Amino acid sequence: MLDVEAALAEAEAAIGVIPRTAARSIRACARVETLDEALIESEAHREGNVAIPMIRQLTARVSASDAKAARYVHWGATSQDIIDTAFVLQLRAAVPRVIADLGRAADAAAVHAERHVKTTMVGRTWLQQATPVSFGLKAAGWCDSLDRAADHLESALADACVLQFGGATGTLAALGDRGPEVAAGLGQALDLSVPPIPWHSHRERFAILACALGVATGAAGKIGRDLGLLAQTEIGEAHEPDTSAGGSSTMPHKQNPVRATVAIAAATRAPGLVSTMLSTMLQEHERGLGGWQAEWDTFPALVSTAGQAADAIAGALEALVVDPDRMRANVNLTGGLILAESIAMRLAPEMGKREAHAAIKRAARRAVGGESFADVLASDPAVSAILDRSAIAQALSPDDYLGSTEAFVAAVLSQRSQRKK
Amino acid sequence: MLDVEAALAEAEAAIGVIPRTAARSIRACARVETLDEALIESEAHREGNVAIPMIRQLTARVSASDAKAARYVHWGATSQDIIDTAFVLQLRAAVPRVIADLGRAADAAAVHAERHVKTTMVGRTWLQQATPVSFGLKAAGWCDSLDRAADHLESALADACVLQFGGATGTLAALGDRGPEVAAGLGQALDLSVPPIPWHSHRERFAILACALGVATGAAGKIGRDLGLLAQTEIGEAHEPDTSAGGSSTMPHKQNPVRATVAIAAATRAPGLVSTMLSTMLQEHERGLGGWQAEWDTFPALVSTAGQAADAIAGALEALVVDPDRMRANVNLTGGLILAESIAMRLAPEMGKREAHAAIKRAARRAVGGESFADVLASDPAVSAILDRSAIAQALSPDDYLGSTEAFVAAVLSQRSQRKK
Amino acid sequence: MLDVEAALAEAEAAIGVIPRTAARSIRACARVETLDEALIESEAHREGNVAIPMIRQLTARVSASDAKAARYVHWGATSQDIIDTAFVLQLRAAVPRVIADLGRAADAAAVHAERHVKTTMVGRTWLQQATPVSFGLKAAGWCDSLDRAADHLESALADACVLQFGGATGTLAALGDRGPEVAAGLGQALDLSVPPIPWHSHRERFAILACALGVATGAAGKIGRDLGLLAQTEIGEAHEPDTSAGGSSTMPHKQNPVRATVAIAAATRAPGLVSTMLSTMLQEHERGLGGWQAEWDTFPALVSTAGQAADAIAGALEALVVDPDRMRANVNLTGGLILAESIAMRLAPEMGKREAHAAIKRAARRAVGGESFADVLASDPAVSAILDRSAIAQALSPDDYLGSTEAFVAAVLSQRSQRKK
Amino acid sequence: MLDVEAALAEAEAAIGVIPRTAARSIRACARVETLDEALIESEAHREGNVAIPMIRQLTARVSASDAKAARYVHWGATSQDIIDTAFVLQLRAAVPRVIADLGRAADAAAVHAERHVKTTMVGRTWLQQATPVSFGLKAAGWCDSLDRAADHLESALADACVLQFGGATGTLAALGDRGPEVAAGLGQALDLSVPPIPWHSHRERFAILACALGVATGAAGKIGRDLGLLAQTEIGEAHEPDTSAGGSSTMPHKQNPVRATVAIAAATRAPGLVSTMLSTMLQEHERGLGGWQAEWDTFPALVSTAGQAADAIAGALEALVVDPDRMRANVNLTGGLILAESIAMRLAPEMGKREAHAAIKRAARRAVGGESFADVLASDPAVSAILDRSAIAQALSPDDYLGSTEAFVAAVLSQRSQRKK
Repeated sequence: MLDVEAALAEAEAAIGVIPRTAARSIRACARVETLDEALIESEAHREGNVAIPMIRQLTARVSASDAKAARYVHWGATSQDIIDTAFVLQLRAAVPRVIADLGRAADAAAVHAERHVKTTMVGRTWLQQATPVSFGLKAAGWCDSLDRAADHLESALADACVLQFGGATGTLAALGDRGPEVAAGLGQALDLSVPPIPWHSHRERFAILACALGVATGAAGKIGRDLGLLAQTEIGEAHEPDTSAGGSSTMPHKQNPVRATVAIAAATRAPGLVSTMLSTMLQEHERGLGGWQAEWDTFPALVSTAGQAADAIAGALEALVVDPDRMRANVNLTGGLILAESIAMRLAPEMGKREAHAAIKRAARRAVGGESFADVLASDPAVSAILDRSAIAQALSPDDYLGSTEAFVAAVLSQRSQRKK
Repeated sequence: MLDVEAALAEAEAAIGVIPRTAARSIRACARVETLDEALIESEAHREGNVAIPMIRQLTARVSASDAKAARYVHWGATSQDIIDTAFVLQLRAAVPRVIADLGRAADAAAVHAERHVKTTMVGRTWLQQATPVSFGLKAAGWCDSLDRAADHLESALADACVLQFGGATGTLAALGDRGPEVAAGLGQALDLSVPPIPWHSHRERFAILACALGVATGAAGKIGRDLGLLAQTEIGEAHEPDTSAGGSSTMPHKQNPVRATVAIAAATRAPGLVSTMLSTMLQEHERGLGGWQAEWDTFPALVSTAGQAADAIAGALEALVVDPDRMRANVNLTGGLILAESIAMRLAPEMGKREAHAAIKRAARRAVGGESFADVLASDPAVSAILDRSAIAQALSPDDYLGSTEAFVAAVLSQRSQRKK
Repeated sequence: MLDVEAALAEAEAAIGVIPRTAARSIRACARVETLDEALIESEAHREGNVAIPMIRQLTARVSASDAKAARYVHWGATSQDIIDTAFVLQLRAAVPRVIADLGRAADAAAVHAERHVKTTMVGRTWLQQATPVSFGLKAAGWCDSLDRAADHLESALADACVLQFGGATGTLAALGDRGPEVAAGLGQALDLSVPPIPWHSHRERFAILACALGVATGAAGKIGRDLGLLAQTEIGEAHEPDTSAGGSSTMPHKQNPVRATVAIAAATRAPGLVSTMLSTMLQEHERGLGGWQAEWDTFPALVSTAGQAADAIAGALEALVVDPDRMRANVNLTGGLILAESIAMRLAPEMGKREAHAAIKRAARRAVGGESFADVLASDPAVSAILDRSAIAQALSPDDYLGSTEAFVAAVLSQRSQRKK
Repeated sequence: MLDVEAALAEAEAAIGVIPRTAARSIRACARVETLDEALIESEAHREGNVAIPMIRQLTARVSASDAKAARYVHWGATSQDIIDTAFVLQLRAAVPRVIADLGRAADAAAVHAERHVKTTMVGRTWLQQATPVSFGLKAAGWCDSLDRAADHLESALADACVLQFGGATGTLAALGDRGPEVAAGLGQALDLSVPPIPWHSHRERFAILACALGVATGAAGKIGRDLGLLAQTEIGEAHEPDTSAGGSSTMPHKQNPVRATVAIAAATRAPGLVSTMLSTMLQEHERGLGGWQAEWDTFPALVSTAGQAADAIAGALEALVVDPDRMRANVNLTGGLILAESIAMRLAPEMGKREAHAAIKRAARRAVGGESFADVLASDPAVSAILDRSAIAQALSPDDYLGSTEAFVAAVLSQRSQRKK
């Protein structure tokens, strides 16, 4: 806020709206060390916003050194100009760190995607083992999603980096006809684009940015959930490394997926915070009665939530310990049942899909009972009429049933390298 | 869903994955009239999704006319491919209507902005009368916000119009190495772009689109709230026209702002629906356990909610009855008090801002007590030393205190005409 | 709504406010078959609520048979009286079914709790295997939670079952001084309690009920998530029975946890719907401008969502197939590591907690490498100084490390039997 | 948390589970001054919860003075026992202040209700002037709603004040068979009731309390919105007093409704926070993976939000400046049109409701054009055949059209005095 007030004074001084000496005095006093933050907080509570007591203190500081300059503090602006523009400056400082962490996470995912493009693991739908995938495919999905969320966030941030400057009711009347000139100078000084019209009670830029933070948090949360599930003791295909962190206070053997949990917790919180940001949009006339004020706690909490998620997932993916042996063991857990579709696709053109489905379901039930799935299939005349033992064996090879896995991983990595150019 | 199944069969037939005759039979049967929708609904409840019973019925229809073709229904796809792609097709049909209604609303706002650029009315902050604005400025703010929301929604829709096609776990393994070719053909047939990788459990495109619908609804809701407030009996500056609609069941004299209310109600509902869409993002592994399924009721409700808001605000703005006389009367209501800032800006450079503020506050209190604000000011020696009666009169002229109003309106209208090119 | 209108006429006729013959005619015509629902829906959209066109049609029906009686349709009431009271009647019809299903679910959980009080399984925290529990303990936790949610919902429903009757602005002025008498009669006729004051724009009863539905859905969702996790192929400790439902369209071997998923999906949707109900509470003056209207789609969706969750979990728990062998196998999976705490509690008083923790962590690492945990422990002199082999063996017996499990299960079941009395 | 650890040690010592001297040492060290809070915070981030580093520091402090006692710190408990129980203690400290402020607000509303039972003002529906009410009636509605919200919150708090104590997975196995005894002693020491079963991953008590906070905030927010609307410059019927607070940084004449705004802002934030608390309920198995952790920031924010709303509305209602003259002026604003219903109720039994409605609508339109409503009505033969001038005059007297207003106010005040007994 002090930066905005100082830049405002300088922009006004540059075109003669206020004296140059005043601007110099204001700039000199606009240092956060001189403010009594506790007092500002308590007065803000009573007066309705944080700018009023801040300006009072700034004015007093300026007045102490240059009484005349004090008259020009906050010249022509309204509290909301200062608060909103300062908010934008803070977002511009904070959100790129979220974007960078999403990028770190996507980079780490891309490394896994490339390295494990052929590391076969079981695909899981409805939390049931389904057909095989590779860990590289899973990581490529994460990577693609993180990149998309990061790009969207970057674009939303750029759109939200605009100056707020409209004076009491958005006309800049206090500046006569010099409003646009001051706005242009102020925008330039702060490196913010100047919007066609003040947006005191039109918050779609903030709402879009808030949503983009929510989406990014959700993308990170999905990965967190996957990681938590992969790290289950009974699955154990990937886990955060065993460090002093994540230990249990009572169970010495445990290694908790702390980072994944941070991301899930963040993704549990973000939707409610985003919904609040959307609810704040109905701001009355030229300044909101509650909607604007509700942003103040909510938006920073959302940025911080997204930041936690992005950082946690970046850390988790960078440090992830992948266990191809457990992946292989889990692929083999059902003795080939997860390749049922592979059999079905070969039987169906000959015997019909429904009949194939039924034959396999019969075989699957016997296999669950202990017999080998391949044997059961081979012993079914309806099946053996179409597939001999070697064809069955080939159909039941998980590494041969990865379809377009490599093509999809390559497409993600290639798109990403083009995007980076 | 039938369109997707038929296009799938044709795309597969075109490259020899299934017989051409099968594709013809499937296309011929893929007509919604042949389905038992009630049965699908009841079975979907039990089986977990709507595609399974639909495919069963389609297969039976195909089988009845061409038993061999029935083997190739849904060839190589998974339920989610069909459901998600059909969802995308429905979004592509529905969301442009929302965008069009936002455009209608923005057009209507632009007309008000241009027509009423000089129609002075009071600006209101915290629901208190503040400094003057023009109705054109208010309408330009609406217009700019609606355009931004519409543009954002259009871009989010375009990004979400992608094919879903990955088979059981996103590898298209059932198609061997023909997956990408089939996907390309299917995408072309449905006019959907083909993503680098299936997105069964990566929902950021949907989430971004849902958010954009939420933002659009919020933008409309803000206007609805403004309109509801302007239409208050005691303010009466603009209102929906007096038609048979909006009457009260018990109070014959009333004219309720029905359309504004529809928009506010929609904007009250949208944040919760958006938050649900964000909550659904944490979908497990290769198919979600609850998150995916939660989209099914939520996303359509959100599209419909946004549609109601956009249509209602378009209708409200198109039909809006503006009352410049009431605007003028309300500007004059406080006898010039709303121009206090105008006086302050002239006093401050001479006497200091704090002193100016204090002098005006004193005068304002006496004026509220019944004396004319101009007279009270003129009778204050501290004031009259700086401003004579005519300077006071000029400072208290609302039409002369509109600052950059015209420039802002012009900027909005010019940006908009450029955007349309 | 027709029931309310008919009861209103009768209550008024009973004390002479309107003619008895009018009430008879109104009652006779208040049949839903006579209404044109499509017309009501389309007019409601335009007129702002559903009661206005409904009353118009009812009046026309009454008029056709008894012109004089038509004058007394809806006598002294406002649209909101009819809509809100009808809403209450619908809630009174629908919510008990949710409560009943929660009860069914709790009953089924109680059966599991009792039957499996000694069925040892692994407890899981952060999705990592922790110390043992019994499946009965887990089921008792579900049972207790469902009972609490059901009781709370029942109490919230009872509090919400109040008459809405206030006329245009909540004064019942149209009835002169007969308002309270008519209200009393109407409340009696509909078996609704009469509140001290109309609640047109005070919605805390509805909000509390909505919240209780949200909490119940969350309680069901937690169980759904547990069931989905237990049913994972790699864990397989409990699953929905293998029926035709839950099959995959492409993978013949799969059995999806459909009911658990319905509950999770519902619990993903409910928070957003509840947040909307809370957002609707800020209803302006004597009738809301958007808040009231936003309830209309949201509240029924929430009741339906809660109903789906309760029914799904009841069905899932009633049909649940429990697999004590898989539970035992998973308990044994880590070769005793999950009993580390048991060892630690015996070592700590002798050697200090930190040292015990460290000793066990060392042993755990070697055990993960393949050696038996018991052997490793026994070979550590620091450990063997305190625990001999048999003490180690006893400490590593999962069935002997269930602590107060039986007491907790008994407490839940006993509280429940007392509650039922 | 320190209180819980100390009480735990003492409860265990009391029945001989740990040495009495250990308990004394632990109690002596359990002082917040001895902790390094910054270190706890940074380690908590890495280790997944705040209890682990806190316990480490406590153990070190105890160890420094009594090495043996250090072995018994946190004996038999898990982190979540400490965190949850400490959370409950904090809720028990904080929420009663919210309840008290709701009570203050209700008391203030009751005073207005009693004092202004006959202060006629206009009722407003859809923000349009409707039939008259009294300010006492409006205040009685606020009072009733606040009392209900406070009662509900009190009951939810009482239900949530339960001990959490279950050890690693809710079996208290580390305490052998002494678990229930220790729990009983700990509950007694902390004055918390002991639940039938630990609730580590069953959060319905917290969810219900969170909802009750949300409902209370909504009730306060509704009043805030009413106050904001009443304080509008054009309405001016009630406003916060003119103090130094609520001034504008640029407009010396303004008096912003700061307290009402705080309540509206809080009620804008609460729904999202409540939805998060509901979303957290799906906690996995015996400890949640993200859901539990998401409570930590959300629940305190919600308590604080509710507290802000309750305090603001209490302050606003206590200090409210009511302006019966403006109320009267606004009642008269339409020249009797707001009494249209009063006329209609007298015409309808004679001429039919539809005809009466039409006659009044005709008259209303002419009256809006400038003629007196009474004159226009008297000049309509259809009306004058039923009502003479004096009957029209009586029907148009707002003070005579308050119906059951006094009865409703009396009912609220009487119910409240009974509740307090």
